[in-house]
Amino acid sequence: MTTDHALTALTERVRRFADERDWQQFHTPKNLAMALAGEVGELLAELQWLTPQESAAVMADPGSAARVRAEIGDVMIYLTRLADVLGIDLVAAATDKLADSARRYPVDRSRGSAAKAPRVE
Amino acid sequence: MTTDHALTALTERVRRFADERDWQQFHTPKNLAMALAGEVGELLAELQWLTPQESAAVMADPGSAARVRAEIGDVMIYLTRLADVLGIDLVAAATDKLADSARRYPVDRSRGSAAKAPRVE
Amino acid sequence: MTTDHALTALTERVRRFADERDWQQFHTPKNLAMALAGEVGELLAELQWLTPQESAAVMADPGSAARVRAEIGDVMIYLTRLADVLGIDLVAAATDKLADSARRYPVDRSRGSAAKAPRVE
Amino acid sequence: MTTDHALTALTERVRRFADERDWQQFHTPKNLAMALAGEVGELLAELQWLTPQESAAVMADPGSAARVRAEIGDVMIYLTRLADVLGIDLVAAATDKLADSARRYPVDRSRGSAAKAPRVE
Repeated sequence: MTTDHALTALTERVRRFADERDWQQFHTPKNLAMALAGEVGELLAELQWLTPQESAAVMADPGSAARVRAEIGDVMIYLTRLADVLGIDLVAAATDKLADSARRYPVDRSRGSAAKAPRVE
Repeated sequence: MTTDHALTALTERVRRFADERDWQQFHTPKNLAMALAGEVGELLAELQWLTPQESAAVMADPGSAARVRAEIGDVMIYLTRLADVLGIDLVAAATDKLADSARRYPVDRSRGSAAKAPRVE
Repeated sequence: MTTDHALTALTERVRRFADERDWQQFHTPKNLAMALAGEVGELLAELQWLTPQESAAVMADPGSAARVRAEIGDVMIYLTRLADVLGIDLVAAATDKLADSARRYPVDRSRGSAAKAPRVE
Repeated sequence: MTTDHALTALTERVRRFADERDWQQFHTPKNLAMALAGEVGELLAELQWLTPQESAAVMADPGSAARVRAEIGDVMIYLTRLADVLGIDLVAAATDKLADSARRYPVDRSRGSAAKAPRVE
């Protein structure tokens, strides 16, 4: 599976954004990973005091929906930029990892139990 | 801009992965954001002791390249799953946020200076 | 308020640990902040699929208690090391920030509501 | 080693801060770990675009020194609160973990090489 149009267009858009501002110099993988983590931290801050139920309804309130969507957008921007700088195809990397996880978490041994490593990875 | 085929296919694949294992019950936005942060932490661990130069060359070594690609894959899996659960289009959210950032960081005032908020967002 | 004996002893112990291994060269504030974030990511991974109630009981199970305590220990090690490298007194920095927060979150306006910024900071 | 006066006083101060605002209800280990991660994210944001050298000099500028100290203070507040809620002695947990690490990273095999797992933990 290769990444197609929309994600490619986003990658190019983010690259141009950085190029126009001469920010390539700051965009080492190390720095971008930190920036990604910083944005994920902001996303956590939107959800940290919510109950699971409240978090499931977070998009029902226009104010929090906009904030969560903006944080998700920031995370995606930095992840896209990091993958671009590293030469990694995001969708292919995720698809390959999911195939690994399917082997490590067989359906019959993993079903319905958090105790049995209920992780996507 | 709407999310394209490959990303849609990934979203469906991750959703099926969770459904087959009956893990939807664990996949609240709150829990998924934590899992996303945990995976970003593993990515940071791959890069934390590297110099900026070493981080820029991290894909040249097959061993670290594979580890970094796998961590990026994990991050993308959880980000895709979180966006799916929230009903957010990842590419559209990132594109909108990038447009905001273009307004907040005009090219002529932002060029080449980390002091001038050299952030993609 | 100044940091007391036990915390000073820990700071010195961590410093000696790094010195003996000649790891000062890796311990820039930037790298240590990444390592701190990586350890916090491991802590999140211990708690991510738990309900709030399960997380409140996490120390009742010897296995998870040991894992959570070890992750908390790692976080504290890196935070102590980072503060040492930066010349920051951890307890004084926290105490000052708490005083700021007391001004920003007056008791009468903050009581009992997550909507009213229920943050310690 | 047991934690003594200053850290105990901080723990009590943070506890009283939460009690006065009736925020114990929000302070599950899960929520506090998320808040801790959010604060670490803010710390990363202060350092993300700096070179290692700039990060080593971050306390020389009064503005960044104040911001970094405040973020470190926030991280320490949440770590202290989390440890209190879990019944964990921060200094003892870190000291025990450091002893583990001393066994896993013998001085003679670990000296001076990032390739040889240059981690404090």
